[in-house]
Amino acid sequence: MNCAIIAVGSEMLGPTRLDTNSLKVTTALEEYGSAVIRKAVVGDRLEELVNEIRFSLDQVDVLITTGGLGPTEDDMTREALARALGLDLVLDQAIVDRIEARFAQRGWKMPEVNKRQAMVFVGQQTLTNERGTAPGFHLEVRGKHVWVFPGVPHELEWMLATYFRPWLHERSGGQARWRRVLKIAGITESGVEEKLKPYYEAHADEPPVTILASPSAIEIHLAANGDEATARDLLAIRERELLDLLGDRVFGYDDDTLEAVVGRLLKSRGETLATAESCTGGLLSSRITDISGSSAYYMGGAVCYTGAAKTMLVGVPSELIAAHGEVSEEVAIAMARGARERFGTTYGVGITGIAGPTGGTPTKPVGTVHIAVATPTDVEHRKLFWQGPRTIVKWFSTQTALDLLRKTMLRTG
Amino acid sequence: MNCAIIAVGSEMLGPTRLDTNSLKVTTALEEYGSAVIRKAVVGDRLEELVNEIRFSLDQVDVLITTGGLGPTEDDMTREALARALGLDLVLDQAIVDRIEARFAQRGWKMPEVNKRQAMVFVGQQTLTNERGTAPGFHLEVRGKHVWVFPGVPHELEWMLATYFRPWLHERSGGQARWRRVLKIAGITESGVEEKLKPYYEAHADEPPVTILASPSAIEIHLAANGDEATARDLLAIRERELLDLLGDRVFGYDDDTLEAVVGRLLKSRGETLATAESCTGGLLSSRITDISGSSAYYMGGAVCYTGAAKTMLVGVPSELIAAHGEVSEEVAIAMARGARERFGTTYGVGITGIAGPTGGTPTKPVGTVHIAVATPTDVEHRKLFWQGPRTIVKWFSTQTALDLLRKTMLRTG
Repeated sequence: MNCAIIAVGSEMLGPTRLDTNSLKVTTALEEYGSAVIRKAVVGDRLEELVNEIRFSLDQVDVLITTGGLGPTEDDMTREALARALGLDLVLDQAIVDRIEARFAQRGWKMPEVNKRQAMVFVGQQTLTNERGTAPGFHLEVRGKHVWVFPGVPHELEWMLATYFRPWLHERSGGQARWRRVLKIAGITESGVEEKLKPYYEAHADEPPVTILASPSAIEIHLAANGDEATARDLLAIRERELLDLLGDRVFGYDDDTLEAVVGRLLKSRGETLATAESCTGGLLSSRITDISGSSAYYMGGAVCYTGAAKTMLVGVPSELIAAHGEVSEEVAIAMARGARERFGTTYGVGITGIAGPTGGTPTKPVGTVHIAVATPTDVEHRKLFWQGPRTIVKWFSTQTALDLLRKTMLRTG
Repeated sequence: MNCAIIAVGSEMLGPTRLDTNSLKVTTALEEYGSAVIRKAVVGDRLEELVNEIRFSLDQVDVLITTGGLGPTEDDMTREALARALGLDLVLDQAIVDRIEARFAQRGWKMPEVNKRQAMVFVGQQTLTNERGTAPGFHLEVRGKHVWVFPGVPHELEWMLATYFRPWLHERSGGQARWRRVLKIAGITESGVEEKLKPYYEAHADEPPVTILASPSAIEIHLAANGDEATARDLLAIRERELLDLLGDRVFGYDDDTLEAVVGRLLKSRGETLATAESCTGGLLSSRITDISGSSAYYMGGAVCYTGAAKTMLVGVPSELIAAHGEVSEEVAIAMARGARERFGTTYGVGITGIAGPTGGTPTKPVGTVHIAVATPTDVEHRKLFWQGPRTIVKWFSTQTALDLLRKTMLRTG
């Protein structure tokens, strides 16, 4: 099944934004063995959009469009499709009512322009959007399929899961490409590559594993084609081989994040956590609380951007700060212990460092970060040095803190 | 001058990689007032590439291709262009010699396949590539221009700077496109549209402004072509007209973020800030501390994920929580005041709410958030209701808090 994707929106033709939605669509298609043979980005101009739709549809069986379904004049995916495919549009009062109700919930009146979003294709399937005001569509014209989705990422994701994947699943007859992703922290991409040498040698005749590096993890992608049971069996065997080489550096699988893995561990053990952050400025607590249900194990945190705040909120003695400096192993440990004691939790995490770009000294350059994890009986410490912009130093500091907490818990489990 | 970009390479049609080269090309084009009207990504298949080149060139004056110039069988940009444009290819011995010399420098012998990279178009301009083995091309066919560049980013950058920008500069005669972006918070995209009606009516004969919605702001993009002084003057006039319609909803310009604008305000007034967060879990403090130099005005914050933490860290009376519930106007105000007093700052922000997806009740549904800003003399409060996943509720809550703080400061300035 050959597919094409069109992303609609002039903003993606400028120098600042890319069409990232196509990756979500491609991921779904890949799983069911369908190939994308072209992708295009077009602006909010009716004629070009009509041309693009016709040209794409000439070459493929399935066309997916994202974006251009908003309420304003420059949202013209609906009109372009109607013209390119020879379909008629009509106002659907039920959708007007739905959109009005969404606005009313916030105490607002629906602007008149939003009625554009209630225009639907006569004789075609309208896809209710529970995440936003713009419905999507599944059009079937002359044996070809056109899926029309909104461009807002979380709306698109919901629609792919609700309508598109089930359809792909049915059409594929159970044959698909199955994936397993192993997620790794605490080691570089080339370090992973080195560790995998024996694996490469043992499986030189198989499709190679893919290693991808992103800020949130190093990922190893395994894939197998076929029916689910056979493919999953093979993947389980390969995964075991990789785990033998990588050990507890593998923190999770597939959609796991470090904060979700740490959260699951805490929850399953009935343990609790508190944090005290300086240079990460609340990013650690924000990541922890991105997880639904985190209030069961996360009691809270202190963001101590000054020495006085470290003393006030988590009881770091001012003499200790005077003796060792705010950025020191001693202060990180006192913060972790203080958080643990003040909040009455099983674990406490303390982070102090210099995120930059200013504030560095010859002995403590920008990027120096001390991280500590306090347990009921002990304390762990890591000193880091990350080069990069401020937000990257913050990110990798929280990444290291979460991974240190995870490993500490596993050792004491 | 209308332009199109084609990125060639199957790897950009999978679920992991995007065509980022087009941003570099677009940046150069935009500066000289040229618009990209479409972008496409195609794989390494000859027929589709030929179709794509023809289709693109039908619609534009200038086509830019990146990638597909490597030495292997699946690099077929040269062949596709020859076929689509009716040009002949011939081996250029001088380029063979150059490539052989590059290999020899590293002590290697040139593989035979690299000769493919020495194929050039008869009667057209070949662009020497000092950063790699693949030359590029500038083709002129029937009054249209095709620029052919390698896909390796640092090779592309060098070629854009060496050949493409000088050509654009010459063609533009010093005329370029200038931009101004107005950033807006506290109102929806369609709300902005409504407010701009008088502007649209007054300037129906001009290119319309572009309105873009992203989680971080609603943006109004103004653009003017011409020499710098004239264009900047026109943009300043249009900006003033928009400000008259939008007032203090415009929080910043161009690359501004709300956290940067609030930070600049605090710094210029010599004032300070502390925060107390429940449902946003530290995201507000993390955003504030993403700004370099924030330690000058941000003293710290409390992440109070339990009632007990609200009492311990920022002194919210437990009776107040018992009487009104953790998610209430009264508790948000007490958190804001408590943060201000504990940290000894000019302002305090308090946020309490239900980020979901669980924890809602009929009277306090998921998405209910109370936000308060305490000043030395007063307190401001907003009640919000956001639908969406947990991270979206968190984001918009911090967005509203920062904007409420900004407006409160402007009123008391």
